[in-house]
Amino acid sequence: MGQKPWDGRFSQSTDKMVERFTSSIDIDKVLYNCDIDGSIAHLKMMANQSIITQNEADTLLKGLEQVRKKIESKDFEYSDALEDIHMHIEKALGDEVGEVAKKLHTGRSRNDQVALDVRIYLKRETEAIMNALFSLQRVLVQTAQKYIDVVMPGYTHLQRAQPVLFSHHLMAYYEMFKRDCERFEDSIKRTDVMPLGSAALAGTTYPLDRELTRKLLGFSKVSDNSMDSVSDRDFVMEFISCASIAMIHFSRLSEELVLWSSSEFAFITISDAFTTGSSIMPQKKNPDVAELVRGKTGRVVGNLMAILTIMKSLPLAYNRDMQEDKEPLFDTVNTLKACIDIYSKMIPNIEINQNNMLNAAQKGYLNATDLADYLVVKGLPFREAHSVSGRAVAFAISGGAEGGQSKELHELSIDELKQFSDLIDGDIFDFISIEKMLSRRVTHGSTSYANVQKAVEVASKRLNLK
Amino acid sequence: MGQKPWDGRFSQSTDKMVERFTSSIDIDKVLYNCDIDGSIAHLKMMANQSIITQNEADTLLKGLEQVRKKIESKDFEYSDALEDIHMHIEKALGDEVGEVAKKLHTGRSRNDQVALDVRIYLKRETEAIMNALFSLQRVLVQTAQKYIDVVMPGYTHLQRAQPVLFSHHLMAYYEMFKRDCERFEDSIKRTDVMPLGSAALAGTTYPLDRELTRKLLGFSKVSDNSMDSVSDRDFVMEFISCASIAMIHFSRLSEELVLWSSSEFAFITISDAFTTGSSIMPQKKNPDVAELVRGKTGRVVGNLMAILTIMKSLPLAYNRDMQEDKEPLFDTVNTLKACIDIYSKMIPNIEINQNNMLNAAQKGYLNATDLADYLVVKGLPFREAHSVSGRAVAFAISGGAEGGQSKELHELSIDELKQFSDLIDGDIFDFISIEKMLSRRVTHGSTSYANVQKAVEVASKRLNLK
Amino acid sequence: MGQKPWDGRFSQSTDKMVERFTSSIDIDKVLYNCDIDGSIAHLKMMANQSIITQNEADTLLKGLEQVRKKIESKDFEYSDALEDIHMHIEKALGDEVGEVAKKLHTGRSRNDQVALDVRIYLKRETEAIMNALFSLQRVLVQTAQKYIDVVMPGYTHLQRAQPVLFSHHLMAYYEMFKRDCERFEDSIKRTDVMPLGSAALAGTTYPLDRELTRKLLGFSKVSDNSMDSVSDRDFVMEFISCASIAMIHFSRLSEELVLWSSSEFAFITISDAFTTGSSIMPQKKNPDVAELVRGKTGRVVGNLMAILTIMKSLPLAYNRDMQEDKEPLFDTVNTLKACIDIYSKMIPNIEINQNNMLNAAQKGYLNATDLADYLVVKGLPFREAHSVSGRAVAFAISGGAEGGQSKELHELSIDELKQFSDLIDGDIFDFISIEKMLSRRVTHGSTSYANVQKAVEVASKRLNLK
Amino acid sequence: MGQKPWDGRFSQSTDKMVERFTSSIDIDKVLYNCDIDGSIAHLKMMANQSIITQNEADTLLKGLEQVRKKIESKDFEYSDALEDIHMHIEKALGDEVGEVAKKLHTGRSRNDQVALDVRIYLKRETEAIMNALFSLQRVLVQTAQKYIDVVMPGYTHLQRAQPVLFSHHLMAYYEMFKRDCERFEDSIKRTDVMPLGSAALAGTTYPLDRELTRKLLGFSKVSDNSMDSVSDRDFVMEFISCASIAMIHFSRLSEELVLWSSSEFAFITISDAFTTGSSIMPQKKNPDVAELVRGKTGRVVGNLMAILTIMKSLPLAYNRDMQEDKEPLFDTVNTLKACIDIYSKMIPNIEINQNNMLNAAQKGYLNATDLADYLVVKGLPFREAHSVSGRAVAFAISGGAEGGQSKELHELSIDELKQFSDLIDGDIFDFISIEKMLSRRVTHGSTSYANVQKAVEVASKRLNLK
Repeated sequence: MGQKPWDGRFSQSTDKMVERFTSSIDIDKVLYNCDIDGSIAHLKMMANQSIITQNEADTLLKGLEQVRKKIESKDFEYSDALEDIHMHIEKALGDEVGEVAKKLHTGRSRNDQVALDVRIYLKRETEAIMNALFSLQRVLVQTAQKYIDVVMPGYTHLQRAQPVLFSHHLMAYYEMFKRDCERFEDSIKRTDVMPLGSAALAGTTYPLDRELTRKLLGFSKVSDNSMDSVSDRDFVMEFISCASIAMIHFSRLSEELVLWSSSEFAFITISDAFTTGSSIMPQKKNPDVAELVRGKTGRVVGNLMAILTIMKSLPLAYNRDMQEDKEPLFDTVNTLKACIDIYSKMIPNIEINQNNMLNAAQKGYLNATDLADYLVVKGLPFREAHSVSGRAVAFAISGGAEGGQSKELHELSIDELKQFSDLIDGDIFDFISIEKMLSRRVTHGSTSYANVQKAVEVASKRLNLK
Repeated sequence: MGQKPWDGRFSQSTDKMVERFTSSIDIDKVLYNCDIDGSIAHLKMMANQSIITQNEADTLLKGLEQVRKKIESKDFEYSDALEDIHMHIEKALGDEVGEVAKKLHTGRSRNDQVALDVRIYLKRETEAIMNALFSLQRVLVQTAQKYIDVVMPGYTHLQRAQPVLFSHHLMAYYEMFKRDCERFEDSIKRTDVMPLGSAALAGTTYPLDRELTRKLLGFSKVSDNSMDSVSDRDFVMEFISCASIAMIHFSRLSEELVLWSSSEFAFITISDAFTTGSSIMPQKKNPDVAELVRGKTGRVVGNLMAILTIMKSLPLAYNRDMQEDKEPLFDTVNTLKACIDIYSKMIPNIEINQNNMLNAAQKGYLNATDLADYLVVKGLPFREAHSVSGRAVAFAISGGAEGGQSKELHELSIDELKQFSDLIDGDIFDFISIEKMLSRRVTHGSTSYANVQKAVEVASKRLNLK
Repeated sequence: MGQKPWDGRFSQSTDKMVERFTSSIDIDKVLYNCDIDGSIAHLKMMANQSIITQNEADTLLKGLEQVRKKIESKDFEYSDALEDIHMHIEKALGDEVGEVAKKLHTGRSRNDQVALDVRIYLKRETEAIMNALFSLQRVLVQTAQKYIDVVMPGYTHLQRAQPVLFSHHLMAYYEMFKRDCERFEDSIKRTDVMPLGSAALAGTTYPLDRELTRKLLGFSKVSDNSMDSVSDRDFVMEFISCASIAMIHFSRLSEELVLWSSSEFAFITISDAFTTGSSIMPQKKNPDVAELVRGKTGRVVGNLMAILTIMKSLPLAYNRDMQEDKEPLFDTVNTLKACIDIYSKMIPNIEINQNNMLNAAQKGYLNATDLADYLVVKGLPFREAHSVSGRAVAFAISGGAEGGQSKELHELSIDELKQFSDLIDGDIFDFISIEKMLSRRVTHGSTSYANVQKAVEVASKRLNLK
Repeated sequence: MGQKPWDGRFSQSTDKMVERFTSSIDIDKVLYNCDIDGSIAHLKMMANQSIITQNEADTLLKGLEQVRKKIESKDFEYSDALEDIHMHIEKALGDEVGEVAKKLHTGRSRNDQVALDVRIYLKRETEAIMNALFSLQRVLVQTAQKYIDVVMPGYTHLQRAQPVLFSHHLMAYYEMFKRDCERFEDSIKRTDVMPLGSAALAGTTYPLDRELTRKLLGFSKVSDNSMDSVSDRDFVMEFISCASIAMIHFSRLSEELVLWSSSEFAFITISDAFTTGSSIMPQKKNPDVAELVRGKTGRVVGNLMAILTIMKSLPLAYNRDMQEDKEPLFDTVNTLKACIDIYSKMIPNIEINQNNMLNAAQKGYLNATDLADYLVVKGLPFREAHSVSGRAVAFAISGGAEGGQSKELHELSIDELKQFSDLIDGDIFDFISIEKMLSRRVTHGSTSYANVQKAVEVASKRLNLK
C-alpha cells in the first residue's frame, strides 16, 4: 500500500494483472512534453496567485526541467504500477525535489490534466499536419507547372471520356488537400480550448487564474463548463474525421498511381528508389508506397470507428473507457504525417510518360462529345446531336464503310461522317482535334490551357512559390 | 431503343433487371425541388448568355413550374426505366413543352447536375439542422434556468464524485450542441460551392456564365476545378461526420435519461405522453424515446462508415459507385432532425425529482475531496490530505467508532474525525456542507451557484431568450 | 386512451410525434408472414396444451389466414398508432374474430415474438442467399469451363507477374463464394434456435410446450435461457458479418471487371444490355453494374457498423434500441441478394477478348521467373538465378545490345542472354514459352491446364453441373 | 545495391524513407516462430522430394533452430532495410550456414509464406482464445452455482420488470460466450487451410508435395487455388468479426458491472484489488477494469472496420495493402485475450450484495404481470387482465385509498385490490410473492429455481466442473 495516489480508503493492493491491464504508460508516454509544459504553466499561475510560494515554484520548475531531460536522455524507467505519464512525472519530480513535489497536484485532477495534455499535443500535431499538407500542395502545383501542357484522357467510370490536361488532373488533388487544410484549420478552433481548472468534474475551490494559465500556454479560449471539459472528446473525433477524409483522398490518388504504373496504362514510371521488387519474380517493380498508403486508409477509418464506438453512450463525466482514445488518435496522427511526407517526396520522383498519355487520349472516341457540340453549334438540339454522334461512334467501331478494324472518328472520311448529318462539313476535323477541344473548354474551372495555367498561378501565389 | 439519353451507340436495350438495379429514382426523387431550382438558374443564365433565346427560356421555365406542381400533386409517375430524378423531370418537361425541352441539357451533364442538386439540398438541410439545434439549446438553457439551484451528485466512472448543480450538468450538453452547430456552420463553407458548368468532367465549350448561375442560386463560391467538382463528395463525408459526433452527444444524454428514469436513480419522471408501456408487464413505463435515440446513433455511424467505404480508392472523376452516397446522406439528415425535434419537445415534459437528487448527493462521501481541501487550507500538502480523507472514508464506511451501519463523513463526531488529523476542527461540518462545497467552486466554469447562473445568462442572451 | 396494449397505468395519451418516432411499422411489416406463421404454431401448441380450447384455436387460425390474405391483397391499412406488425395483426385479428383475439397473446411477449419473427425471416433468407450463391458458383464454373484454356497475365500489385489461365482466375472467385456459403451455413446454426416461450424476459407461467412449437416451426433447437433469448442479436451481427465478407468479394470482382472493361486493359466487353451510356458523351459504355455493386459494399459494411454500435453496452434484457436492428438487416439481405442475382445474370453476358489477354501475357517479362527457374534447374541457387534474370530484364528493357525500343526476354538472342550466364542454352526459348510455363505449374492448386481442368470438374460435380 | 532479394533489375537503391515506410518488421516479428516452423516443414518436404539433399536440409534445419534461439535470447538485431520477418530469418540463416541458406526460398514466395505464417499464428491463437473462453464459462457457471437462489430484479428498458434469479442472469452470459466459442470453432475451419506451394500467385514448377507439408504442419486441408491462396484474407475478417461480437458481449457485461457497482444499484462490490481510486477524490473506488473492457470494444470494432476497408476493391492477387492486415489482427487477438483473462480473474473477486438485490426485486411492481396472470387463471383474457393490473399499479403508486406515499401491490389491502376486479381473492398475496412467481416460471429456459439449477448442472457437466 501507500504507493498509489488514492489508496487511503483501500485495504488491498491492486492486483498485478490489473495494474498491467489498466496501465496506459506504453501509449501516453508520448505526452511527456505536453504534460510538463502544462505543469509549468500551472505552477507559474499558482505562484502568481500565491497558492504556492515563489520559492516552491522555482524548485518545482527546475525539477520538472530535470525530469524532462531525464526522459529525453532515455535514462528513465517506466512501470505499470505508476499507471500513466502524469504519475511517472510526479514520482520523478518527487525523486528530484522531495516532499514539495506533492504541491504540483494542487487544484488539479488527472481528468483535466489529461484533457489539457491531449489538447496541447493535438494543437501542435494539427499544425504540423497543416504544414506538411502545405508542402504537398506545393509539390503538386510544381508538378502541374512542370507538365502544364501534357494531354491525357480524362476518365469517368474508368472509361476514357474527354481529353484533359494532366496538370488539370493534378490540380484536382490540389483542391482536395486544400480543403483538408481548411477542415483541419476549422477543427483547431475546437481543440484550442484550455480545460485546466475543471478539476475532477465540478471545478475547484482554489483561486486559480485560468485566464493566466491559458495565456501561458497560448490557448485562445478557456473552457466554460467543468463537466463538459473533462468528458469532451469531440476534438479527437473531429480530428480523426478530418484525417479519414484526407486518407480517402490519398486512397484515390494512390489508386490512380497504381493504375498508371501498370503495363496497361504505362502513364508513369516511379523511380527505383520508391518502388520495391519481388523475391520471386525478377522483372517486378511494384508501386508499394502507393499501395501501402491506400491500405493505411483502413487503419485511419478504423480509428474513427473505434473512437466513435468508445464514446457512444458514456454518461457524464469522465469514464475510464476514455483512456482508449489515445491509441487511435496517436496512430492517426503518425499515419497521416507519414503518408503526407512520403508522397511529398515521391511525387517529384515520378517520371511522366507523355507520349503514352497523349496516345491514349487519341483513341477511344474522346471527341464524340465535341462532334455533338459541333452539331449544336450548327443548330441541332443537344439530345439529337448526342444521338448522331453516338451512331457515328458505333459506325467507326465497326470499321466505317469498309468494315474491319475499328477506326477513330477523326479517321472517318467526310463522306462517311456526312451520312449521319448533313450539318457536318470539312471543318469538323479541326474542330474535334485535341488541341481545339481543350482550347474551347474555357469556362471557369474547365481544362483549357489558359484556365489551368491561371489556376496554377493562383495556387503558386497562395503557396508562396513565386 | 430510343428512350435513353445515351443510346446512339447501343445496339441492345438495357436489361429490365439492370434498369431496376441501377435506378436511383426511389431515393433521389427527394431532390426534385433542388433539381428544378438548379435548372431554372441554368436556363436564366443561358438566356442571358444568348445560348438559348428568351422565348425558349420562358417556355422552359413555365414548363418546369408545371412539372413541379405535378410532382407535388402526387400525380406523377415514376419509372425505373428513367433512372433518376433528372431524367424524370426532363421527360416530364418534354411532355409539357415538346422538343424544346431537349435544350435544357445544353452545357450540362448529369455529373455536375447531381453534384449541384445535392449541394443545394444539403445547404438547406444543414441550415434547418442548425436551427433545430438552436431550439434544442434554448430548451436546455430554459430547463437549466428553471432548475437553477437543484443539487445532484456529479459522477465519474458512474460513481458519485462531488455535488454539482443539475443546471450545470444540463449546461454541459448545451456546450456540446453549441459545438455541433459550429461544426455544421464550418462544414457549410465546403458545401456552399457551385459546381454547375463542370459538365461531365472537363468543363464545357458553351459560354456559360458560372458567376451568374452562382448568384441566382445564392452560392458563395464557384468551384475551381471541373474534375474535382464532379468527383468530390467531401461535403457529404464531412456532414455525416458532424452528424455522427452530434449523435454521440445524443447517445450520452439518452444514456443518462435512461439511467435517471430507472427505479434505482429515480431522478426524473418522463411524462406518459413520451413513454410507452409493455404488452405483458402492466407496471412498465419505458423511456423508449431515449432508447431509440441512443439506438439511432448506430444508424448514423453506419452511414458514415458506408460513405467512407464507398469513396475509398475511387479514381477520378465520376464513378457510378457515387450514386450510393444519397441514401446514407438522406437517412442521416432525417434521423438527426427527428432526434433533435423529439428531444426539444420531450425535455420540457420531464419532471425533475429534486428530493431524490439531493438525497443522492448527500450520500456516498461526496464531501471527501472537500475534507482534503480543508486540510490543505490548514497547511497539509494535497497528496497527504487526500490520504487522511481516504482513511476517514474507510472508517465511516465501517460505521465509525461503534462499527455497524455505514455513516457519512458529516455523521462522524468531531472526535472521530480528529483521530485522522489534529488539524480538523468544529468548523469542518459547515465546510463540507453541500451548500458550502458548491459555493466555493468559483473558478470560471466551476459549478458554484453564481457561476452557473452567469453561464445560463450568457447563453440566454446568445439564444435571444431574454 | 384505451387503444394501446399497455395503457392501464397511463393517464396521458402518447404524443403523436412520439407515435411516429417510435413506430416501426414501415420497416417491420416485411415480417407479416413470419409473424403469422409464428402465431399459428403458438396457437396450435396452446390448444394441444389446453391453454385455449380447440374451438378458440380454430377460430383464431382461420382469422389469421384471413388477415394474411388481407395484407397480401394490399387492402390493409397501416398506422403509426399501432406501432408494429405484431399489433397490426392482433388488431386485424380482433376485427375478424372479436374478443377471442385477445387470447393470442397468452404466454407471449412482443420481446420473444419479435425475436421469433426475425429468426424465421433470417433462416429463410439465408437459405435463399445460399441458393443464389450456389447459382453464381455454377455460372462461374461454367464460364471457366467455356474459356478453359484462355491465357491472361496474372497480376500482383497490379503489375503483370506470371501468365495464368483466365479460368484459374475465375476459379479463385469460385473459392471465395464457396467459403461465403460455408460461413452462411455455419451462421444458420445460431439463427435456427426457437426463442418463443421466453416471454418478456423471465419465461412464462403458462404450461407451454416449447418443444412442440419448435417442431411446428421447423427449428432445430429451443433456446436455453429466457433472458438471453430476448436480448440476443448475435445472429443478426453474424449474418451481416458474413454478408460484409461476401460483399468484399464482390467489390474485388467488380474492381476487376471495371479494370478489364477499360480501353487500357480491354480484356472484356460487357454486353449493351448490362451497361449504360452517358447523357453527354456519346461514345461511353460504362460498367455501371460493376461499379454499383462495388459501391454497395459500403452500404453493407455500414450496416455492420450500425448493428455493432447499436448493441454496444446494452444491459440485459430487451432495450428499445434493438428495434433499430431491422433496417440494417433487411437492407443487407436485399442488397446481397440483388448483387448475387445481377452478377449471375451478367457474367454470361460478358465477352472475353482472348487475343488481348494473350497479347498482354506476352509482354512485360512474365517469363522472368521461369528464366530463373531454368537456371536453378541447371544448378544455380534460386536467389542468384533471380538476380541473373533481373539483370537480363533490365538489359531487355533498354533494348538489348542495340539499345532503343524495349524487347521482351524471348526477343533477345541467345548470345545476348548468355552474357548473363553461361548456363543458358538454346532450349531456353521453349522453356520460357507461355505454354511451357503454364504446363510446368503442376503442384496442386497451380495454374497448369490439367490442374484447372481438374478443379473445374470437381466443382462441376459438386454443383451438379454434370 | 545487392542487399535486396530483388534488386537485379534495379539501378537505384531504395530510399531510406521508403524502407522505413514499407518495413513491417516492428509488427510481423511476432510471427518468427510460425515462420520458422513453416520453413522447417518446407525443408523436410523438399528433402523428401529430393529438391534439396538431405545434407542441405540438415544444415538448414539446424541453422533455423539456431536462429530461433538467437531471436528468443533477444540477441537479435532488427532493421528496416530487411523489410520483414521472412527476410530477417533468411539473412540470419545465411549468417549461420552460408550460401546454402539461399535454397530455403526454393519453390516459395513471400506471398504464400506470409499467408502460411498468419494461418499458423491464428490457428494457435484462436485455440488459445477458445480455451480462455472455456475458463471464463467455468467461472460464470461456478458463480451461478454459488449464488444459485439469489433473487434480483430482471430489467427491460432498464426498468424493473420481473424478479429473476441472479444465477439465471449470469447464465445468459454463459450462453453468449458459449456461442462465441462455437463461432470461433467454425471460423477455424477456414483458417485451417495450408497455402504454401501457391508461390507468388500461379503455383510453382517445383515438384512440391503439398500434402506432406500439410501433414507436417498439422493442417486439415491444402488450398485449392493458388491465386485465391495468396490473396485471401477471409480468415482474418472472419476472426475479427467473431471477436467483435464477443467484445459486444463484454461491453454488455461491463455496462452491467458498472451499473451494479454504482451507489444507486449497489448490487455488487468489486474487490479493492480490481478497482482503482481517484487522485483527487479520496472516497472513490472505480470499476476501471469494467470500463476499460467496455472501451476496448471500440478498438476491436475499429479493427474490423480497418480490415474490411483495406480489402475493399483489391484486384487479385497479392497487393501490398494487405501488409496492413497484421496490426488489426494481432491487436484484436491481444485485446480479446486480455479481456477474457481479466474477467475470469475478476468475477470471483466480486461480492454479491444479496439483500440489496432482493430489496430491489420487492419494489417497483415486479409482480404486476403475475397479478394479470392470476386473473387469467380465473378466466379473464390476458389483454383485459393486463389492463386491470395496470390500473391497480397506478392506484398503488398514488398511495392506495389513503393516498400519500406509494405502496407496492402486495401492500394494498384485499379490499383495495378487489375494486379492480371481483376475481381477486385472499390467495393473491401468496400468488404474487417472489418465491411463487419464480417457482411458476417452469417452461424450459425460464427462471424457476429448478430450471436454473438444471441449466447450471448441464453446463457444469459440459465444462467438466463435476
